[in-house]
Amino acid sequence: MNKLFLLAAAPLLLAAQTPETPQSPAGIVAATTAEDWRPIASHNLLVMTLESGSEIFIELAPSFAPIHVANIRRLAGEGWYDGISINRVQDNYVVQWGDASGAKPLPEGVETEPPAEYEFPMEEVWLSAFSSVQQNNYEPISGYLAGWPVGHGPREDGRRSGTLVHCYGMVGVGRGDDPDTGTGAELYTVIGHAPRHLDRNIALVGRVVEGIEHLSSLPRGTGPLGFYEEEAQRVPIVSVRLASQLPEAEQPRFEVMRSDTEAFRAYVNARANRTGWFVRPAGAVDVCNVNLPIRRAADG
Amino acid sequence: MNKLFLLAAAPLLLAAQTPETPQSPAGIVAATTAEDWRPIASHNLLVMTLESGSEIFIELAPSFAPIHVANIRRLAGEGWYDGISINRVQDNYVVQWGDASGAKPLPEGVETEPPAEYEFPMEEVWLSAFSSVQQNNYEPISGYLAGWPVGHGPREDGRRSGTLVHCYGMVGVGRGDDPDTGTGAELYTVIGHAPRHLDRNIALVGRVVEGIEHLSSLPRGTGPLGFYEEEAQRVPIVSVRLASQLPEAEQPRFEVMRSDTEAFRAYVNARANRTGWFVRPAGAVDVCNVNLPIRRAADG
Repeated sequence: MNKLFLLAAAPLLLAAQTPETPQSPAGIVAATTAEDWRPIASHNLLVMTLESGSEIFIELAPSFAPIHVANIRRLAGEGWYDGISINRVQDNYVVQWGDASGAKPLPEGVETEPPAEYEFPMEEVWLSAFSSVQQNNYEPISGYLAGWPVGHGPREDGRRSGTLVHCYGMVGVGRGDDPDTGTGAELYTVIGHAPRHLDRNIALVGRVVEGIEHLSSLPRGTGPLGFYEEEAQRVPIVSVRLASQLPEAEQPRFEVMRSDTEAFRAYVNARANRTGWFVRPAGAVDVCNVNLPIRRAADG
Repeated sequence: MNKLFLLAAAPLLLAAQTPETPQSPAGIVAATTAEDWRPIASHNLLVMTLESGSEIFIELAPSFAPIHVANIRRLAGEGWYDGISINRVQDNYVVQWGDASGAKPLPEGVETEPPAEYEFPMEEVWLSAFSSVQQNNYEPISGYLAGWPVGHGPREDGRRSGTLVHCYGMVGVGRGDDPDTGTGAELYTVIGHAPRHLDRNIALVGRVVEGIEHLSSLPRGTGPLGFYEEEAQRVPIVSVRLASQLPEAEQPRFEVMRSDTEAFRAYVNARANRTGWFVRPAGAVDVCNVNLPIRRAADG
């Protein structure tokens, strides 16, 4: 049994490989230098603690959804998320958390009708930093921008428009039927195959960088859309804090592999052309199957 | 909170819609007739029962991997799977079950070195029944064939070759480093974003049609590749039976939406062009995001 799916063994063999041998993704990561990584700033990192003590760490994406992220920082800073709960776990789709009562007043300073930050103009400076991964026919170019999964293409107004992509672990802002009704008080993360139909329809604001297994392994809700039917099934959230709110010595530190480097391109190529156990490399990789390396920093 | 993600409400509005209004996927399913479905034969249906009493139902795909499926039928028929366990749960990847001891002898009649049934020739009769869904650049044409997610394209020998696709819930046969070492005694199912790099590298033999939440919500293994590190963490499997082994009155009955019908094409189109809550339809849908309807038969 333990011979099966022996992918992890490949990196151990790298030392013995000649330079001509294609490298494994893990081998490429092991050979990176400090310049291939960027740290996650403490004001862009949420720490969500469940009643069980489990912690989930979320990187925010202020460059893509600045007003929604400002709301989330405000909500975390005021302790508004403390005591809310996970209310929805829909298999192969999302885990969602918020105030189940719907009655908790928002703190002052939260924008209650933020604009629909679902797309952004792909200006030249962004295009120059974009690393393409794979094309498909409804998101003409998919790839990575500043370490985030992004699709971009021509839009009605003739400009190019980009959008964050709903890959596994991405975090978004629940909203009602009007596109401007999501404040950031209700959040979800993807726990299944990328629901790309949500792209450009809802604000993505970040991604889980560690601990998603504490969400993805929760019992599925049996009500419509995977909502828990009984109050007792809801999973209490003790607190959500920005890492910057914590004493400096206690701040968790993560770093993300940069996506504008030679190492990243080699990594994507290796993910597209797997070796070892594989008999037929795919030759390409879905933007949501890149699995961008994110790790604890040495002092994290 | 319960206003958010209000997708389920759309079908209820269908009666009031004019014919010009695009239909929702659920509305199309509701309007199907008996001819739009095919039953799952009892000798193609596995019933896996966990110690908790939870049941997982798996449809086998003998047309695509006949020798592996013959092995699995034999193993189920002989009760070989009874008492094995789930040993691996890797987040955003697979749940895998088998004989953790590796010492349980296989029953007579099991092909111990089956051929690599990872691809099949797309003969004209198959091509004529194939419903395309979306193109991407490494599986030139993706779609559905006989109700199964399939990709096909030109291969080295000039013929077209097809393969089952590793969508969420698909079931495959674990193997070692040699492509012919998977008997069917060790099985896995996908619980994350489709790992398309496994396509054409391992035998897919079926899919979970009900109960995958009992697998996808299991605690993740903390060992390499998500294997459980302690014996006590393994999840005992009480039994795996073919439905045809059960008394007829107790046989569960499922039916799968046919993929060579006008209803299927309308369903795919509706999945690609969602209405209601959505402000920007995607215009296309990933083969693994079609979510082919599978349901209990009226007498199931």
